Amino acid sequence: MTIASIIGGSGYGGGELLRLLLSHPGVEVKQVTSRSHLGEYVYQVHPNLRKQTQLKFSEPNMLEPVDVLFLAQPHGQAQHHIDEHAKLAPKIIDLSADFRLRDAALYEKWYGEKHAAPEWLSKFVYGLPELHRAELASADYVSGVGCNATASNLALLPLVKAGLIYLSSPVIIEVKVGSSESGAEGNTGSHHAERANVIRTFSTFGHRHTVEVMQEMCVNDVSLTMTAVDLVRGVLATAHAKVKQGVTTKDLWKAYGAVANENPFVRIVKEQRGIYRAPEPKILAGSNYADLGFELDETNGHVVSMCAIDNLMKGAAGSAVQCMNLMMGWKETTGLEFIGLHPI
Amino acid sequence: MTIASIIGGSGYGGGELLRLLLSHPGVEVKQVTSRSHLGEYVYQVHPNLRKQTQLKFSEPNMLEPVDVLFLAQPHGQAQHHIDEHAKLAPKIIDLSADFRLRDAALYEKWYGEKHAAPEWLSKFVYGLPELHRAELASADYVSGVGCNATASNLALLPLVKAGLIYLSSPVIIEVKVGSSESGAEGNTGSHHAERANVIRTFSTFGHRHTVEVMQEMCVNDVSLTMTAVDLVRGVLATAHAKVKQGVTTKDLWKAYGAVANENPFVRIVKEQRGIYRAPEPKILAGSNYADLGFELDETNGHVVSMCAIDNLMKGAAGSAVQCMNLMMGWKETTGLEFIGLHPI
Amino acid sequence: MTIASIIGGSGYGGGELLRLLLSHPGVEVKQVTSRSHLGEYVYQVHPNLRKQTQLKFSEPNMLEPVDVLFLAQPHGQAQHHIDEHAKLAPKIIDLSADFRLRDAALYEKWYGEKHAAPEWLSKFVYGLPELHRAELASADYVSGVGCNATASNLALLPLVKAGLIYLSSPVIIEVKVGSSESGAEGNTGSHHAERANVIRTFSTFGHRHTVEVMQEMCVNDVSLTMTAVDLVRGVLATAHAKVKQGVTTKDLWKAYGAVANENPFVRIVKEQRGIYRAPEPKILAGSNYADLGFELDETNGHVVSMCAIDNLMKGAAGSAVQCMNLMMGWKETTGLEFIGLHPI
Amino acid sequence: MTIASIIGGSGYGGGELLRLLLSHPGVEVKQVTSRSHLGEYVYQVHPNLRKQTQLKFSEPNMLEPVDVLFLAQPHGQAQHHIDEHAKLAPKIIDLSADFRLRDAALYEKWYGEKHAAPEWLSKFVYGLPELHRAELASADYVSGVGCNATASNLALLPLVKAGLIYLSSPVIIEVKVGSSESGAEGNTGSHHAERANVIRTFSTFGHRHTVEVMQEMCVNDVSLTMTAVDLVRGVLATAHAKVKQGVTTKDLWKAYGAVANENPFVRIVKEQRGIYRAPEPKILAGSNYADLGFELDETNGHVVSMCAIDNLMKGAAGSAVQCMNLMMGWKETTGLEFIGLHPI
Repeated sequence: MTIASIIGGSGYGGGELLRLLLSHPGVEVKQVTSRSHLGEYVYQVHPNLRKQTQLKFSEPNMLEPVDVLFLAQPHGQAQHHIDEHAKLAPKIIDLSADFRLRDAALYEKWYGEKHAAPEWLSKFVYGLPELHRAELASADYVSGVGCNATASNLALLPLVKAGLIYLSSPVIIEVKVGSSESGAEGNTGSHHAERANVIRTFSTFGHRHTVEVMQEMCVNDVSLTMTAVDLVRGVLATAHAKVKQGVTTKDLWKAYGAVANENPFVRIVKEQRGIYRAPEPKILAGSNYADLGFELDETNGHVVSMCAIDNLMKGAAGSAVQCMNLMMGWKETTGLEFIGLHPI
Repeated sequence: MTIASIIGGSGYGGGELLRLLLSHPGVEVKQVTSRSHLGEYVYQVHPNLRKQTQLKFSEPNMLEPVDVLFLAQPHGQAQHHIDEHAKLAPKIIDLSADFRLRDAALYEKWYGEKHAAPEWLSKFVYGLPELHRAELASADYVSGVGCNATASNLALLPLVKAGLIYLSSPVIIEVKVGSSESGAEGNTGSHHAERANVIRTFSTFGHRHTVEVMQEMCVNDVSLTMTAVDLVRGVLATAHAKVKQGVTTKDLWKAYGAVANENPFVRIVKEQRGIYRAPEPKILAGSNYADLGFELDETNGHVVSMCAIDNLMKGAAGSAVQCMNLMMGWKETTGLEFIGLHPI
Repeated sequence: MTIASIIGGSGYGGGELLRLLLSHPGVEVKQVTSRSHLGEYVYQVHPNLRKQTQLKFSEPNMLEPVDVLFLAQPHGQAQHHIDEHAKLAPKIIDLSADFRLRDAALYEKWYGEKHAAPEWLSKFVYGLPELHRAELASADYVSGVGCNATASNLALLPLVKAGLIYLSSPVIIEVKVGSSESGAEGNTGSHHAERANVIRTFSTFGHRHTVEVMQEMCVNDVSLTMTAVDLVRGVLATAHAKVKQGVTTKDLWKAYGAVANENPFVRIVKEQRGIYRAPEPKILAGSNYADLGFELDETNGHVVSMCAIDNLMKGAAGSAVQCMNLMMGWKETTGLEFIGLHPI
Repeated sequence: MTIASIIGGSGYGGGELLRLLLSHPGVEVKQVTSRSHLGEYVYQVHPNLRKQTQLKFSEPNMLEPVDVLFLAQPHGQAQHHIDEHAKLAPKIIDLSADFRLRDAALYEKWYGEKHAAPEWLSKFVYGLPELHRAELASADYVSGVGCNATASNLALLPLVKAGLIYLSSPVIIEVKVGSSESGAEGNTGSHHAERANVIRTFSTFGHRHTVEVMQEMCVNDVSLTMTAVDLVRGVLATAHAKVKQGVTTKDLWKAYGAVANENPFVRIVKEQRGIYRAPEPKILAGSNYADLGFELDETNGHVVSMCAIDNLMKGAAGSAVQCMNLMMGWKETTGLEFIGLHPI
């Protein structure tokens, strides 16, 4: 059994990770830390874990050595303790934004403060298997992924990989998100009476996940417009771009098909009938799938590419476990087999 | 023009009151106070009031004399300042729980602390026109009503008024409520990600509104079981009781019909077809109606009586304005004519 | 009193119209037709109208002459009966799509069939007062507006009116909509279990309302991408475009301010703090407001312009009543004063 | 491998069953029938099954012999074909209501028509393992369970089993339900615009599941009051009863604890702090748990007992698979290990 611990287990990302690790056949969870819920049973915070485990939240300072250490704290914390953490475990997967960017200057620009451990940035691999599968197999340090960045990157992946768009063309991505994105702490706008029934655009330009799309897809002129809707789990990214002259719908089928074939958690959703004709996040709750869809206006080359994910799974804990599987040499889908529900 | 001010205008009750007063033909709003939003435009907190008023939240200590003063603060505050408030206005309507009970001992029992101004309790009339219309016409001091108590009281009113149940029989009331009941501040469970999709029983016995039902309906053995559901505005109270021997459905029609005829905001909803066959709060959002319905099992006398209201209207600000209309000698329905929406 | 009747009153548009007319001080409603609900009380279908009216749905063939006739049937019906309708009333307002386009060829292209009464197209004025106020004052025949077209047109209006964008530039509009858009009949995807929690893109290109944007805004290269979200009433249109070289945020403030000043139902929502910083449809339920907002990336000229409306009000019945007010020489806002609710 | 087929696989119960069987380690699904979706891929109707199976819906008449046959049709069909079905498989599990009652007269009374195969009623075991574990181990024919009956039966089980209530005392059960209960076909009230935001009491007395509670719990005077709320999956049954003289909270802990210990899918939820203090269906989506909670008013013996389940799992397909596991001699929890999600 591989022994793992989680730092920061009372948040939504940490809770989802815990759920996955508790039912993972190759892992035993040793400790889960939380300062705010110290001493409580984990199921008192994550009620789905009742009768699954008698673990209690422990003190971050009392961590024991493990095989794999997961960091699931709010952004800006892991970078201050990475040296200590590295002494506890040979392999670290950090769900926060601290080690996602390769360039410390970009971190400072988008996060508004100097990075505390810039020397560590090059040691981390960006934790999206669909982009870095081979590197992950030999990585010791893996970053998490931004959930909105993940939906955006996977929406663009077939287009970029097959060279169907110019990397310098403008890309407009409209991202619609559920309320679990705001984290377990929420914010003033998270109160159900204010947050229910919304179509609330909370960021038109400048969302921090934008830089992850620029880094990973090498697109230079990209904007993310973020809109909150009435849903708990789920992200839909809708990317608008122009394909190169002459690109046809058939080319797109080929490009998307290739990505779906190479990646066990990528599916193409493009139906002519039925209710679910395009990617939709609601049926993905709890699953690690990324559903892709597209439409091309052949008269003007306007392509609309969509990607739906569960932000806590493919956009956070699910990808992290997938990375662990690759790092440990296990089957990539282990512990991630949950199919998703319909209806829901 | 009657001049009115509101103390505590940034909460949900105060905001709803402000909305009603701004469109009331007989009232001019002079001041609205809020310590936490001092100096902000009221429309920055209540975005529906944009382009309706340029009022800003002012300091509670700077209030000027008015004709009617509304108190819309959290419970436990008005009782400490009632003497000062009374110097500012000849008529006061307090939406909080501070002056709802006639008996200081009951207040202490249910609210867990001594009442700070017990001598004032007898000066206040309980502010539900359906129960105290005549007294309200000559009242200077009027209390608000508990929203759950109001739905419960109106569900029981036809049965009690027509003497169809024994006052000593057990009455079980199941109350289902929306999230605006928890107030603008909310609580840890109000986060959309936790509060969406709930069927959450948060109080099985002992909810404070119970004592308002005991006082107003004179029923001795009554329990309220409170369940939160995924809705912002609205309460449905479902009362289960036993009718006296021999009472028939026809008797119930007569009793409910009488109450509906005497009260402009009471309607009976009891249809054999269509979608809306029984009282439902969703179509009442923004309206002051109380919709009543009932079913009797003639084989055993089990009666189910339902009342749906908008908790912020009939259960709070709407009843308060209705009381003001009565106190001022105006038409009872003035400023409360909004019909409600379908669909919604 | 002006006498009005409604053909097709059991749908959502017709019901909303009925609600508005019943509380309009200058109008008396004579008849409301519905074949499927013939003989039923209107409140059995529109439960909010209970205790407001004893009208029953009548037979379309039995209509009596009136001053104003409203048509609220599904698309494709009014054009077949417009000659008969015109004999019943000197003024007609048709909420359907039948007379929105000025060009019969465009109608055929976008609606897939020949127009049955092309000679009537030039007699109708497009019923959006913000675009055609002067013409409406002397119009006898007024068309309805597409709800998505209205949100899109109003999002573009300040930019187009002030000449801040080139009409030939590509405009990408992402429209998010509630479930009342699908009409009272719904469709297979409208079942709550399928429709709840959705972020469902049901049309990437080619939505019929696109042509109304082309006609009214004179933009040639425009696409509407339609996404259904979990909400009953409301539309948010988010338009992405490029402003002309040198246009600044200050220019935008001026352009948007001008439109808001000229139009009683247009507001600008652009706050730096609070929960409601940008236009949001949820607080508009039942109101006739169109809330506009914008953001400009001055580094590259990318402008994001937003418009939120209630699809059944500003996007249908509200604009129709506003047109009636103009046609009758009444104050434009009569009967449309409802403020909207917060929270909701 | 045990070979299984499903008759009626396009409904919600059938789809859930298919999901469970596809990931069950001991079962291979041979055929899934649907007349309305004949020839379609099952994932076109149940989009969560995409990339899981290439099965298509087949013709009911073309069924081949299997080890276990599941019937998941609407009520009233299985009883007409049970003889033919029995020729195809030695073991049958029927999710419909056709074989739940042991008494043909009761069936006729509650379902309004004569039972077509009364001789089969005694061959079936009621398919709730918590009530009939031992019998199920040797059963060949197993009925499904009513979802509301299941929540009600499990809410009452500890009280009845420990003899804490008189079976002749009145029991009032308030049941709150999600929209998936109405089935994939829905009804006129299922349209999202009508069904969203509801607190809709659709049955005060006489719901058909009542008789399953009478049969299984032997309580004579029981009523179910059914209220629809805004949720897709989930049921909460809240039972009100009187305990026998002298029964204390400690006695209840013992009774509920015993039931939780004997049953792998029963949990007690009764916390003093945190958000999830009582049973809630939302965290059970996709899981087979039944969460029980209770409160006793020791002053008058009023007990409130709650049970939350996922209506499609413990209330339908989950219990069916649990029964299959028992019938086949497998571990009772096989294929039912999904933990449930938080948040959701």
